[in-house]
Amino acid sequence: MTKTYGELNPGERVLLGPGPSNVHPRVLKAMATPLVGHLDPDFLEIMNDTMELLREVFQTKNTLTIPMSGTGSAGMETALVNLLEPGDKAVVCINGLFGQRMADIAERCGAQVITVEGEWGRIIEPESVEDALKGSGAKLVAIVHAETSTGVKQPIEEISRIVKNYDALLLVDAVTSLGGVEVKVDEWGIDACYSGTQKCLSCPPGLSPVTFSDRVMEVLRTRKTKVQSWYLDLTMIQNYWGKERFYHHTAPISMIYALRESLRIIHEEGLKNRFKRHITNSNALVAGIEAMGLEMFAQEGHRLPSLNAVKVPEGVDDVKVRKYLLERFNIEIGGGLGDLKGKIWRIGLMGHSSTKNNVFLVLSALESALRAQGFSIRPGAGVAAANEVFSKDL
Amino acid sequence: MTKTYGELNPGERVLLGPGPSNVHPRVLKAMATPLVGHLDPDFLEIMNDTMELLREVFQTKNTLTIPMSGTGSAGMETALVNLLEPGDKAVVCINGLFGQRMADIAERCGAQVITVEGEWGRIIEPESVEDALKGSGAKLVAIVHAETSTGVKQPIEEISRIVKNYDALLLVDAVTSLGGVEVKVDEWGIDACYSGTQKCLSCPPGLSPVTFSDRVMEVLRTRKTKVQSWYLDLTMIQNYWGKERFYHHTAPISMIYALRESLRIIHEEGLKNRFKRHITNSNALVAGIEAMGLEMFAQEGHRLPSLNAVKVPEGVDDVKVRKYLLERFNIEIGGGLGDLKGKIWRIGLMGHSSTKNNVFLVLSALESALRAQGFSIRPGAGVAAANEVFSKDL
Repeated sequence: MTKTYGELNPGERVLLGPGPSNVHPRVLKAMATPLVGHLDPDFLEIMNDTMELLREVFQTKNTLTIPMSGTGSAGMETALVNLLEPGDKAVVCINGLFGQRMADIAERCGAQVITVEGEWGRIIEPESVEDALKGSGAKLVAIVHAETSTGVKQPIEEISRIVKNYDALLLVDAVTSLGGVEVKVDEWGIDACYSGTQKCLSCPPGLSPVTFSDRVMEVLRTRKTKVQSWYLDLTMIQNYWGKERFYHHTAPISMIYALRESLRIIHEEGLKNRFKRHITNSNALVAGIEAMGLEMFAQEGHRLPSLNAVKVPEGVDDVKVRKYLLERFNIEIGGGLGDLKGKIWRIGLMGHSSTKNNVFLVLSALESALRAQGFSIRPGAGVAAANEVFSKDL
Repeated sequence: MTKTYGELNPGERVLLGPGPSNVHPRVLKAMATPLVGHLDPDFLEIMNDTMELLREVFQTKNTLTIPMSGTGSAGMETALVNLLEPGDKAVVCINGLFGQRMADIAERCGAQVITVEGEWGRIIEPESVEDALKGSGAKLVAIVHAETSTGVKQPIEEISRIVKNYDALLLVDAVTSLGGVEVKVDEWGIDACYSGTQKCLSCPPGLSPVTFSDRVMEVLRTRKTKVQSWYLDLTMIQNYWGKERFYHHTAPISMIYALRESLRIIHEEGLKNRFKRHITNSNALVAGIEAMGLEMFAQEGHRLPSLNAVKVPEGVDDVKVRKYLLERFNIEIGGGLGDLKGKIWRIGLMGHSSTKNNVFLVLSALESALRAQGFSIRPGAGVAAANEVFSKDL
């Protein structure tokens, strides 16, 4: 007898981790749409809509604004392999795991990497970027806008001015901000920006939206070497997404169906409303967390509404709490990465997962989990504090 | 007023091009399944099933048998960037577009590429591989099993013996064969093999199944340099798919749901039945094509049942015929690539698209399209010839 495999039947989760977030039923439905070919006239229309809608969330006029056929890290690699050539100097800001990853990739591109190290949980100060740039001849500065590993939201504008003064390119990781937190590509003077679909866009993981300025297009035109990745080579990919529609690789059609639908939902809600919703729900969560006697991890004033990092209290077992939430309440939250393993929880309130009801759920379930570990909490304190924030929002 | 975007509503196509093929409704349904996290215990089970089922279609015991998070070309790049280091010598066989692509990527890896050129539409002869290997010190030989651009099926076994004699690794592109045409990774002594989901597996495009032998694992362990692509670095990715379940990048969850379901369908049908179905339907199509007075392009005895390349007859306009098929009958077939543009049609009969009914449809519609161009055909000749093949199959 050969083994039989059962019907696909995963648990029904409330996804409040660092991504994926819960996907809107309309997006799930779009995923189930029968396919057309990747050069079908109907698909070319869908590509056009997707590019237009992506420009809207990136707040940019950049022509080259497309979804790359891979997850967020593929977007990171796309930006670095296309902008950098062997021997180029790159300033990479590191105050979390994703800054580290950028440095790793930049080195694999043969670049000379100058790192600006910052404490995990705090922002990178503009002066330290300037110090690194001085006399360096760096071609680009790479920085993470929304550091998923720490919950820090990095201010970009002042650093952008400095980068421009040194005639370098500004590369920004917006994986955990795009579509949930303000990202103003043109106004902030960002030259290259990438994101992922499974965070605030609330589309399944599998695509990485990217956008590139005219300055980058010029850098691409004047490269001396071939881009080291064929799969991520924008000098070729732009001809598939551009007027030529020249075949490069088969686009992930169903994922693009899903992205278009998730962007359409964002278009209907409006960016302003969406950002406000993310802020309100995060404020309510933070109020609840603090009312329960817990502490937030990231630097005050620079916290991401989409990813709320909470310190694991002394004497409480990180893994046990997360297991309890998953097994008893079907709620996923994230643990810490790297040095922060066991030290923080990462509670995502992203896109379709950023709702008042999910704030209630996670606070209520966390109260139960912490009590089970002997951590003392005034009953209902979290939810009461959250409700107070919501009541002001009406 | 802001622009409104309509509901997703692409045409309903019969996909008989070079991929994507039509996707089974069960797979579409799987795509719409609500998501769990990429480290969720339920997802880890789904990953295990997927690896097991992939080993079945690859006919291998290789531990590292996983779907890469990108389309088929990402699988090609994965194999090359992981196996090659700068300065390595690689023999690349080129008798079509995808052989060219392998050479391009191998060069981007800093390898010294030795090409074995063959006529497009014919197989690569084993002797020419041996000639290239002699005294070369090549680390690997790369060859395309199913050349999507020409419809040629390359025999692998004899070349494999030669490659082993020279102590090189054998890398095989099985994008358009896996799951529809016999691919025996272990028996044929293939060290690295990659495919795409949107061909004979009849899953949407977006993943690239890959498998690597123990010899490759040893090569990975003893690399002197980091893999130039972080995103495709198997030395890290194997720890996510292995026992450690160590986070690398967020897996494309919905796509893996879909792949598991498409592999489950293959498991139920059985590989033998599936290969036989592909052969019978291709035989019927070829009989019909020839009865209509058209000619096949690829070398006789070495034709892919999954991709049937037909010569565009003198005086017939390639683009007009394909447009006619798409607009009047919702049927997609492919045109030629590179030098073969305008010279061949590529009719895919892959996976869920490989049905008797689709053979009838494409022959009937092609008859109509060719008549509209003034090409003379005995009415119903194609379908009659196909029916004759089917009748013998009962």
